[in-house]
Amino acid sequence: MNEIYETIEEKIADLLEKRQYTALRGILQEMNPADIAQVLSGFEEEQIPLLFRLLPKELAAESFVEMEPEEQELLIQSFSDRELKQIVDELFVDDAADLVEEMPANVVKRILRQATPAMRTSINQILQYPENSAGSIMTTEYVSLRTDMTVEESIQRIRKQGVDKETIYTCYVTKSRTLVGLVTVKDLLLCADDETKIGDIMEENVISVETQTDQEEVARMMSKYNFIALPVVDKENRMVGIVTFDDAMDVMEDETTEDIEIMGGMLPSEKTYLRSSAFELFKNRIPWLLLLMLSATFTGMIISAFEGALAAQAALIAFIPMLMGTGGNSGSQSSVTVIRALSLDEMHLDDLPIVIWKEIRTAVLCGLALAAACFLKIWLVDKLLLGNEDITLLVDAVVCLALFATVVVAKLVGAVLPLGAKALGLDPAVMASPFITSIVDALSLLLYFLFARMLLGV
Amino acid sequence: MNEIYETIEEKIADLLEKRQYTALRGILQEMNPADIAQVLSGFEEEQIPLLFRLLPKELAAESFVEMEPEEQELLIQSFSDRELKQIVDELFVDDAADLVEEMPANVVKRILRQATPAMRTSINQILQYPENSAGSIMTTEYVSLRTDMTVEESIQRIRKQGVDKETIYTCYVTKSRTLVGLVTVKDLLLCADDETKIGDIMEENVISVETQTDQEEVARMMSKYNFIALPVVDKENRMVGIVTFDDAMDVMEDETTEDIEIMGGMLPSEKTYLRSSAFELFKNRIPWLLLLMLSATFTGMIISAFEGALAAQAALIAFIPMLMGTGGNSGSQSSVTVIRALSLDEMHLDDLPIVIWKEIRTAVLCGLALAAACFLKIWLVDKLLLGNEDITLLVDAVVCLALFATVVVAKLVGAVLPLGAKALGLDPAVMASPFITSIVDALSLLLYFLFARMLLGV
Repeated sequence: MNEIYETIEEKIADLLEKRQYTALRGILQEMNPADIAQVLSGFEEEQIPLLFRLLPKELAAESFVEMEPEEQELLIQSFSDRELKQIVDELFVDDAADLVEEMPANVVKRILRQATPAMRTSINQILQYPENSAGSIMTTEYVSLRTDMTVEESIQRIRKQGVDKETIYTCYVTKSRTLVGLVTVKDLLLCADDETKIGDIMEENVISVETQTDQEEVARMMSKYNFIALPVVDKENRMVGIVTFDDAMDVMEDETTEDIEIMGGMLPSEKTYLRSSAFELFKNRIPWLLLLMLSATFTGMIISAFEGALAAQAALIAFIPMLMGTGGNSGSQSSVTVIRALSLDEMHLDDLPIVIWKEIRTAVLCGLALAAACFLKIWLVDKLLLGNEDITLLVDAVVCLALFATVVVAKLVGAVLPLGAKALGLDPAVMASPFITSIVDALSLLLYFLFARMLLGV
Repeated sequence: MNEIYETIEEKIADLLEKRQYTALRGILQEMNPADIAQVLSGFEEEQIPLLFRLLPKELAAESFVEMEPEEQELLIQSFSDRELKQIVDELFVDDAADLVEEMPANVVKRILRQATPAMRTSINQILQYPENSAGSIMTTEYVSLRTDMTVEESIQRIRKQGVDKETIYTCYVTKSRTLVGLVTVKDLLLCADDETKIGDIMEENVISVETQTDQEEVARMMSKYNFIALPVVDKENRMVGIVTFDDAMDVMEDETTEDIEIMGGMLPSEKTYLRSSAFELFKNRIPWLLLLMLSATFTGMIISAFEGALAAQAALIAFIPMLMGTGGNSGSQSSVTVIRALSLDEMHLDDLPIVIWKEIRTAVLCGLALAAACFLKIWLVDKLLLGNEDITLLVDAVVCLALFATVVVAKLVGAVLPLGAKALGLDPAVMASPFITSIVDALSLLLYFLFARMLLGV
């Protein structure tokens, strides 16, 4: 894909330099809005408004929506009030609300001044819902029908109103604003008799979400039910808006990125990596690094407490990293699996006993295989090949017993902690590798020294 | 949501026991297919076919598609040939192809025997494309129009053919099978004049994928362009099928799960966690655990090589876990961020210099903050509070210098390796925490002993 952009970008740059605006316009208006936004972002700040003005009105608004906030602000600053009004008029209200949320106060004032009173009301309505709720991502522009309308009347209504609606393919049937059913355009087109009443063909058991529903839940339902749009209702089941599948896809991507960032031991970021400054990256990364570093005080204390034992059996020190590393890896495998299953709604709190039993059996299998491999490796490589004289059968046994116990404990801790976090209403993703590793580090050392004391008497 | 399922499930179980089949049918036919599949999976093996037979024909097929392979097989085994034919006739070909792929050979034979010759051809066509390609997830059922048709003729055609098509909302315009344009039902309905020719209103610059395109790329394009369906063409630009947004959403979820599993140091799994046996989990987890454990031989060798130094300055041992842990966490933060940016197509190989420069600055900030905090913590907690006599200013300095250097090296390694993997055509997700940690463990020990030798002369 990128090679294509580069050639198109070069072609546009070339035409721009030669001021061949008609040819430029010809190229741009054949492009998809998402591609236009991507190509424009590669140009200089003063060239972007120039290129943007070449776009036909509707395409301009569609491309504007796909741009990054920095470029949107730049464009708005360059717009006359009339130009701004043209764009604002073409926006869907959910996109307008997103824009108002992203822009600085003085830009917001200009945008709202150009919006129609109806749009201002809708924007304000959407903005009043909590962040990441269904209300905050919905649009208020949908086609509504009444039960007593005929199929023909409904199609007429869609033809009249449809141009301003984000989707016309699912229409919602309301009775004094209460949601009572839905019909799809497919139902309408495939209905043999134009005089059929909507009330007779509508689907009555409408699956909807409330304005306060978490956007993650909205995306999950969308992906489960394969809907093009999901209606949003208030507590009295009055229809207030719809969430469309494309917004749900964006939510899925954003929420997964957030999960992955948290699992990587970072605070979730607002911006993409390439748009974040080094200082912003630092701010997102340092809290967990500091916390985990300080928590390593415990492992330090454990080692200090067993300093005498380590001095007596110096060979034991060399296996500490292997033991902690394998424990950490075993634990994070389990935690990552459980976190993902929870976030896909494939696992629930009441599955805890099943999870524990499954992890114990898996851990015993992994522990046995690793301990056996480790035993052989220590004897063949460390003892015979590298000639480490300090290694005895007992030392080898201590390392492998500790390894087995560590793997079992790590897998249990790794699987149970995310479920525990969920039970406490915390984000399970916090209980991923970095966190699990810190706990397992300390536990593996304790187990190691315990076995050393039992078998070697140190 | 779960509480609702439990009550519905209980209600169904109750009615089933009392053999009140009419009431049962009443409840079931009001439900969404995805919910029916979920509820049915909670019943006993002999009850599932009984409940399934209560469903009206179309709903039965829709619910069947939503079920897990185990239950689909169970149902097919219980079907008569006539029942099987009813279901197969209602399936979309992409769902039929999925089914054929999942079922054992004897079941596949039965399914294909019941399929119409046209469907058999389509299934075979889809199955011949490589796994995870656009061809393998597409459906061959779409509405095709010709340029010389009028809007009215097109709507008539949709009304006639639409019932068997997976989506009617985007129609593809072909000329001797070559894809030349598309129109949406919205375009058709909103077109004022019924006699307008399709050739005059169609969108000519159709974005399409080839049959061989990776499904991840298909999902990414879908999410970028917000299409309901994406056309799939062969190398000669002949239209062969479409991928719909709901299949793209499933691909997005599956591919992310695979990424997360690989990042957690596991082989990607075919089944969900709760459906995998302990032995299957073991098989997915043990390869990386073994490999990483054996690679820890290097850290062991480094420690053994510096045994003398550690004996002379026993205080140094206690900080090894903290140093390795902080290094691992710093590195995995960077690798996780880069891996996600690569998989969202937000970052490309030619961004390498930008990434390196950003990581260096971020790493210096993180390293300075951590080293300063560590210096104070060692002096105040380990030295003064815990009274560790072995700690001198020089020991403290060695630890903090090694920490700073480790953080910088770890962040660079963490950011560069995923990009390197991408350049080599490998999956960047392999370069996540477990892998990075193993490398950083060894590097951090080397840096530690280097500074110890320089400053303490051990």
